[in-house]
Amino acid sequence: MESGDAARPGSGRATGAPPPRLLLLPLLLGRGLQVAAAASASSSGAAAEDSSAMEELATEKEAEESHRQDSVSLLTFILLLTLTILTIWLFKHRRVRFLHETGLAMIYGLIVGVILRYGIPATSGRDKSLSCTQEDRAFSTLLVNVSGKFFEYTLKGEISPGKINSVEQNDMLRKVTFDPEVFFNILLPPIIFHAGYSLKKRHFFRNLGSILAYAFLGTAVSCFIIGNLMYGVVKLMKIMGQLSDKFYYTDCLFFGAIISATDPVTVLAIFNELHADVDLYALLFGESVLNDAVAIVLSSSIVAYQPAGLNTHAFDAAAFFKSVGIFLGIFSGSFTMGAVTGVVTALVTKFTKLHCFPLLETALFFLMSWSTFLLAEACGFTGVVAVLFCGITQAHYTYNNLSVESRSRTKQLFEVLHFLAENFIFSYMGLALFTFQKHVFSPIFIIGAFVAIFLGRAAHIYPLSFFLNLGRRHKIGWNFQHMMMFSGLRGAMAFALAIRDTASYARQMMFTTTLLIVFFTVWIIGGGTTPMLSWLNIRVGVEEPSEEDQNEHHWQYFRVGVDPDQDPPPNNDSFQVLQGDGPDSARGNRTKQESAWIFRLWYSFDHNYLKPILTHSGPPLTTTLPAWCGLLARCLTSPQVYDNQEPLREEDSDFILTEGDLTLTYGDSTVTANGSSSSHTASTSLEGSRRTKSSSEEVLERDLGMGDQKVSSRGTRLVFPLEDNA
Amino acid sequence: MESGDAARPGSGRATGAPPPRLLLLPLLLGRGLQVAAAASASSSGAAAEDSSAMEELATEKEAEESHRQDSVSLLTFILLLTLTILTIWLFKHRRVRFLHETGLAMIYGLIVGVILRYGIPATSGRDKSLSCTQEDRAFSTLLVNVSGKFFEYTLKGEISPGKINSVEQNDMLRKVTFDPEVFFNILLPPIIFHAGYSLKKRHFFRNLGSILAYAFLGTAVSCFIIGNLMYGVVKLMKIMGQLSDKFYYTDCLFFGAIISATDPVTVLAIFNELHADVDLYALLFGESVLNDAVAIVLSSSIVAYQPAGLNTHAFDAAAFFKSVGIFLGIFSGSFTMGAVTGVVTALVTKFTKLHCFPLLETALFFLMSWSTFLLAEACGFTGVVAVLFCGITQAHYTYNNLSVESRSRTKQLFEVLHFLAENFIFSYMGLALFTFQKHVFSPIFIIGAFVAIFLGRAAHIYPLSFFLNLGRRHKIGWNFQHMMMFSGLRGAMAFALAIRDTASYARQMMFTTTLLIVFFTVWIIGGGTTPMLSWLNIRVGVEEPSEEDQNEHHWQYFRVGVDPDQDPPPNNDSFQVLQGDGPDSARGNRTKQESAWIFRLWYSFDHNYLKPILTHSGPPLTTTLPAWCGLLARCLTSPQVYDNQEPLREEDSDFILTEGDLTLTYGDSTVTANGSSSSHTASTSLEGSRRTKSSSEEVLERDLGMGDQKVSSRGTRLVFPLEDNA
Repeated sequence: MESGDAARPGSGRATGAPPPRLLLLPLLLGRGLQVAAAASASSSGAAAEDSSAMEELATEKEAEESHRQDSVSLLTFILLLTLTILTIWLFKHRRVRFLHETGLAMIYGLIVGVILRYGIPATSGRDKSLSCTQEDRAFSTLLVNVSGKFFEYTLKGEISPGKINSVEQNDMLRKVTFDPEVFFNILLPPIIFHAGYSLKKRHFFRNLGSILAYAFLGTAVSCFIIGNLMYGVVKLMKIMGQLSDKFYYTDCLFFGAIISATDPVTVLAIFNELHADVDLYALLFGESVLNDAVAIVLSSSIVAYQPAGLNTHAFDAAAFFKSVGIFLGIFSGSFTMGAVTGVVTALVTKFTKLHCFPLLETALFFLMSWSTFLLAEACGFTGVVAVLFCGITQAHYTYNNLSVESRSRTKQLFEVLHFLAENFIFSYMGLALFTFQKHVFSPIFIIGAFVAIFLGRAAHIYPLSFFLNLGRRHKIGWNFQHMMMFSGLRGAMAFALAIRDTASYARQMMFTTTLLIVFFTVWIIGGGTTPMLSWLNIRVGVEEPSEEDQNEHHWQYFRVGVDPDQDPPPNNDSFQVLQGDGPDSARGNRTKQESAWIFRLWYSFDHNYLKPILTHSGPPLTTTLPAWCGLLARCLTSPQVYDNQEPLREEDSDFILTEGDLTLTYGDSTVTANGSSSSHTASTSLEGSRRTKSSSEEVLERDLGMGDQKVSSRGTRLVFPLEDNA
Repeated sequence: MESGDAARPGSGRATGAPPPRLLLLPLLLGRGLQVAAAASASSSGAAAEDSSAMEELATEKEAEESHRQDSVSLLTFILLLTLTILTIWLFKHRRVRFLHETGLAMIYGLIVGVILRYGIPATSGRDKSLSCTQEDRAFSTLLVNVSGKFFEYTLKGEISPGKINSVEQNDMLRKVTFDPEVFFNILLPPIIFHAGYSLKKRHFFRNLGSILAYAFLGTAVSCFIIGNLMYGVVKLMKIMGQLSDKFYYTDCLFFGAIISATDPVTVLAIFNELHADVDLYALLFGESVLNDAVAIVLSSSIVAYQPAGLNTHAFDAAAFFKSVGIFLGIFSGSFTMGAVTGVVTALVTKFTKLHCFPLLETALFFLMSWSTFLLAEACGFTGVVAVLFCGITQAHYTYNNLSVESRSRTKQLFEVLHFLAENFIFSYMGLALFTFQKHVFSPIFIIGAFVAIFLGRAAHIYPLSFFLNLGRRHKIGWNFQHMMMFSGLRGAMAFALAIRDTASYARQMMFTTTLLIVFFTVWIIGGGTTPMLSWLNIRVGVEEPSEEDQNEHHWQYFRVGVDPDQDPPPNNDSFQVLQGDGPDSARGNRTKQESAWIFRLWYSFDHNYLKPILTHSGPPLTTTLPAWCGLLARCLTSPQVYDNQEPLREEDSDFILTEGDLTLTYGDSTVTANGSSSSHTASTSLEGSRRTKSSSEEVLERDLGMGDQKVSSRGTRLVFPLEDNA
């Protein structure tokens, strides 16, 4: 062991390789240390030397001080969120629409970031750094012998040697930076689960094919195009001498993957408020939910692309196929995990009478959903993706088994978690622009990125829409395509993926650029949504002239995205004939059999087997399963199905066509819109779903016919409901 | 620097001073390390040496493996909780009452603990430990130079030298042990807040004086008596040579403080189910909630008792008064913090129209309540205590300003959090009996402790009740005193305080003893509650013979302890005359003026000034405040008060006597019991609270009169409602 270059003067705590620190850790550990110190002080007893006692007291004081600072920095964030909530209320109250709550959270974050950065004088770090040299590798635990006492240290990360002495930062700035994994393991799961849980929409399933195409093909295309364009930009920067470190092709592809995760939270909120076209809503929402999952898995596949031998960063077919295999493996594995826990929850809630105890039911639901995340992580898959599919399964099956109270409880619980997590991430983004220590602002790269994401989105929306329109009965109109193009906001997922690793120069540049792209898109596109809707002639529903309070309840309700599934009420249909200039009404009419056969297959499987097994609805399995598994069928079918077999069959035939679903949602949402979630919904919704007494084929015809009619009359003029109140 | 005794063979990861590890940390950090390693691998690029790349790959693999194990161990806990929930359901379904859910959680925890301890072969720790010697003290951060690369390490804690090589433990065992601060900073706050938030009970305020006496005086007496008895036991052990390390008088007092925190969760659950006497419920619940706070502050004051100079652990008047000062300071500071944030929340919810947006309101409520904890910690007070008083303030003022939906949302949110946290703690207790590494089982100490807590409880319940009865109008009967004596269960708080510091031998012995006391009291006393109620002739309400489902809803509802404030319905009053053998009906009758003047003062202040300022109810401030602050009064009074001044005055006059409160609760709870939380409650409850049209003085008379009547008819025979259905 050498000790030559070891003892470094304690000039300040150097920044680690994953520079943002986990704030919760010291909060939790701080006291631990303090208590430990106090304990050792008391246990050493009368024999304690004065000097060591003084030391321990100093350590204790330091730990206490650190704990206090942690509390203050967490308080800062809570204050930020509180401020955001109050301002959101003011904006909603005054019907201000040009700035969404997420945009607001970012602005407040920015302001606090500026104050922390420039308002508080930079203090040198309190922690003294000592260094000692070891033989060859870093261990995760270190035992240090300090004059006879042993202290245990754990590895935090690597530090690039050049930066050890260069960083002069104040304590507060250090305290407000979180470990990036907090975003991935704590904040993203509730957001993603909520998105999946609120996906139970007939319009989502009606547009499933297109949504899958946009999410999978679209994201892949976008990633590839952005990656290649950015590689060109990087080459250009190299020529111009603007690049001070390495930037590989895989880095560019990685950037393409993380920036391809769209998050049109602002646009969707405005859609909800204005009751904009439901199909467009379903397309945008479905795409954004699924492409988050695709982007995560894609980015980790790209990281896994490591060609063998020394020619790293060159193309290698074996490594490429390995990456593709990893992508497929992780994705299908996570999907399976999510679906399996969802199915298990459905079975448990079906076969126990847990619905008599809503608290137990809610707790079970919460635990099972959380366990999906852990299960996937334990198996080496991606927890966030698994949570998404778990949410979708829970909404499709388990939700039907829950008691009425648990339905509202689970919805509200995840709604609150989602709301807090989302606003926290956005306010942290604002903060990070000033408090993050290693920004690499490169104007060329930033401009290139903006152009690339624009082109990347254009290159997947328009061609894909063209191909999809070949197969779709009701086409995706030009105005819809433009709106989708316009709605390519980037948000929480892009940020979380970018901040996850900011060790290298390339990643730092990506992070800075991502942050700016998120700011720009959320503020500009968010503010421009309402004019854009008007300009593109996209149909929006008009609010009934009800009293203001109820109005606001409606808005509030729809803002959060749970079941915003209502078609505009019939009295608004008059608007549909005002301007029947839908540009796509003359397109070709493929028969419904061709375009829908795979979904028809899935629906009938779901209706005949899955629904009866997992929920209390559907036809008895004794009628749908072959005779030889009669015993099994009898065990799995719930008694309710036999009791009221006829009405349930009808209800379920609607489920296939998701017409009954709508009625169910109607019943639900009407009540929730009144600001409550009462128990008498159950009967109303049952009645509602029994309303349509036609056979499934007839309903299908009618349904699709209605769809066509809607398409031909799309493009009504936008009527601002807010002008009435202004 | 010496390197002589440095390199220690990696025989296994030694246990640190605070032995249980924080499990969430590696879960969050694991990935960070992994990514950092991957990043440095990719950034070092083609120039990377093979050996270092291999090393980094190994580190990465190790981190990934560690992350996976973390997920598995968290999964274990979730599985435990899920199992507990399902079994609770089964028990509730079958009306099993001899075992409470918390007892069940402990049993499952025990089983898993046994499996982990004996089922999994002990593996040596994977982490290689290296040690290097420094000059004089431990720093919180360490920079280590490994062949040119710098790694950052953070301090985890001190290790007693004797234990470095002696511990052979398996990974899983290590993974399932949490940092004790998790209990204090994450799990206790929701439990305590929920207790405070559900305290809005007229019976609580009617018995406030007695509750305060039991909580403050009682806990102090109990702590002192247990401490002294245990000191005798320790002396005895020293004589018998059973004590292998130091055990001071302050340690004994500390044990007295931590074991004085009662937690009759099981008893209260059964009270709720059987609708046992509400006054007894209020006494027990109020005492247990407040004595948690007292125990925390008391224990930290005892830790702070450090006589100056070298004669530690001897009596020192200055240090003693300093401790008393610390107690008063921390307690009043925490109380103020909690009350202030509660008041701020009330003001915000009153003066904004946030109630139009229940999601925003709920989020704000949650954030403000959480900020209390952080604020108190940041100021050096006790967050848990602040959260308790915040909860009480929120329930008393803010709750009235919330929208109906937010009321049910906030209740349900904290109910779920409370449920999960409580069951987690109890299942962890079960687990800890086998997985905790440093148990010190001392039969004499354990037997002594059982005797001491029995005597300690007797010494505070009976004398205190005697003195209280001198001043109380409706006396605390002998059967009530016996029941309170019997209900001295120990639970989550005692455990959390005991596990917080297990560094010294004395503390380890205390921890083991506390664990056993919790087990014993929860299982035995929990199972014996129903027979005991019957034996002591304590009045229990009888369930109406309604259909089973609704019944269970009722039970579920009451189990969680939010507003279980219903008197038995009138048709049960016939039971009251069956056996009117209340032993205390002949006691002296002090006039109500004497016993109630301080509360009367508080109520009139609360009614005339606080309620009108903080809520929409109460008389207009313009009538109650002196004329010279008319402008201020006009600003602070909400318009609603003027609009319907007359009805609101009446409603509020009920509030003073908490009679209106009851009616409000009736309205609320009836609906919740039906499994929903509908919006039309508002009108019903308003009507309900307007029912009593008498003036406040008359109501007071009637109220207290009613109380007396109840006392005289106390002691009805127990009628088991479950016998009807069995």
